[in-house]
Amino acid sequence: MNPIRRTACYLTMVLLLNCAVQAELIWLEELLGRQLLPEQNTAGEFEVYRDTMEAVWEELVWFPVPDSSVSKEASVAFENSWMAERNYGGKRGHEGTDLMPSINKSGYYPVVSITDGVIEQAGWLEKGGWRIGVRSGNGNYYYYAHLHSYVREWATGDEVKAGDVLGYMGDSGYGPEGTTGQFPVHLHLGIYVPLGADRELAVNPYWMLKYLENHKLTGSY
Amino acid sequence: MNPIRRTACYLTMVLLLNCAVQAELIWLEELLGRQLLPEQNTAGEFEVYRDTMEAVWEELVWFPVPDSSVSKEASVAFENSWMAERNYGGKRGHEGTDLMPSINKSGYYPVVSITDGVIEQAGWLEKGGWRIGVRSGNGNYYYYAHLHSYVREWATGDEVKAGDVLGYMGDSGYGPEGTTGQFPVHLHLGIYVPLGADRELAVNPYWMLKYLENHKLTGSY
Repeated sequence: MNPIRRTACYLTMVLLLNCAVQAELIWLEELLGRQLLPEQNTAGEFEVYRDTMEAVWEELVWFPVPDSSVSKEASVAFENSWMAERNYGGKRGHEGTDLMPSINKSGYYPVVSITDGVIEQAGWLEKGGWRIGVRSGNGNYYYYAHLHSYVREWATGDEVKAGDVLGYMGDSGYGPEGTTGQFPVHLHLGIYVPLGADRELAVNPYWMLKYLENHKLTGSY
Repeated sequence: MNPIRRTACYLTMVLLLNCAVQAELIWLEELLGRQLLPEQNTAGEFEVYRDTMEAVWEELVWFPVPDSSVSKEASVAFENSWMAERNYGGKRGHEGTDLMPSINKSGYYPVVSITDGVIEQAGWLEKGGWRIGVRSGNGNYYYYAHLHSYVREWATGDEVKAGDVLGYMGDSGYGPEGTTGQFPVHLHLGIYVPLGADRELAVNPYWMLKYLENHKLTGSY
């Protein structure tokens, strides 16, 4: 083979290989049902996440703990403890916000639903104690944990409106059913957004609660 | 070939093809510097975005328009106009929030920096008029548009602290340098987060402004 022919042959092979990689990528895209080429992929997924978050913000209606019309001392405080370390049940990050009451009394503060939604989970969880999980219309999950008690017996599928009392703040959890007193009375709030078909991503409720501080109901407790 | 041998051969081929696809994916992952296997990829990128957004929230300090210590009538209002249609310069979605003053007077309201940062852009833009762009320490971009004037001549690299006056609210833009009066006086705020090496994603400033409504400075204007 003369050198020109050899170079042409070599270039053709490189081109063919290039084509094959592109074809492979497109084939894999179809196989996985996802965009793999780097330019558009990230922007697309980030935009999906941005829209997902927008759907959370838009459905927030009421702060989860009403003001008291009776007691001037009754209030709640909270800090940004996003991913702060927790130790019960193995080291892990804190995926939520703890609302700490000024009065450390189980069963005293009502807890209301932040959003409209449907009850998805109620009953005992080792870490969450008496908990309740509300699925909003936009598909987001609101998790209220460590309750003292429920306002009524909740069943999966029960509808709630934002502002409906779900139960009362307590100190349940960190043990077998009925365990209380393992930590001060507080409400743990978790918010989870859907991530594809069968996974969820915890988001930081702190900024949402800061926003909702200006949207408080008043209860006679 | 007997049927057992044929089946064994067929199964081996399927296995080899499977291995080849896996190897191809791993090779492509290295080539693209990204995780392609579907299980972990989405969660990873969503977590990156969540952390990116967290970094925006954490750096927000002051509402961009101080309260007036002089006039009781001077206030600003804003709505969630995220991606509402805009027509100047072609149909497009509104990537920001407009703060509308109660007093339609150009040069009256001071505009302060929401965050600490460094001036990245100042001067005329056809759509933005006299605008200013601040890059925060976390790498996010804050875009203040349609100003009447600057408090001083800004240069790229000038440092600003949250609460520093940048300029005054106006009605500049939508035309060649110096165009005013094409719309009512207002402040357009845009917030952009970095997306990989050389792109940015607009985020909705509305909820951030709702949060900052409780963090207002007071100015004597």
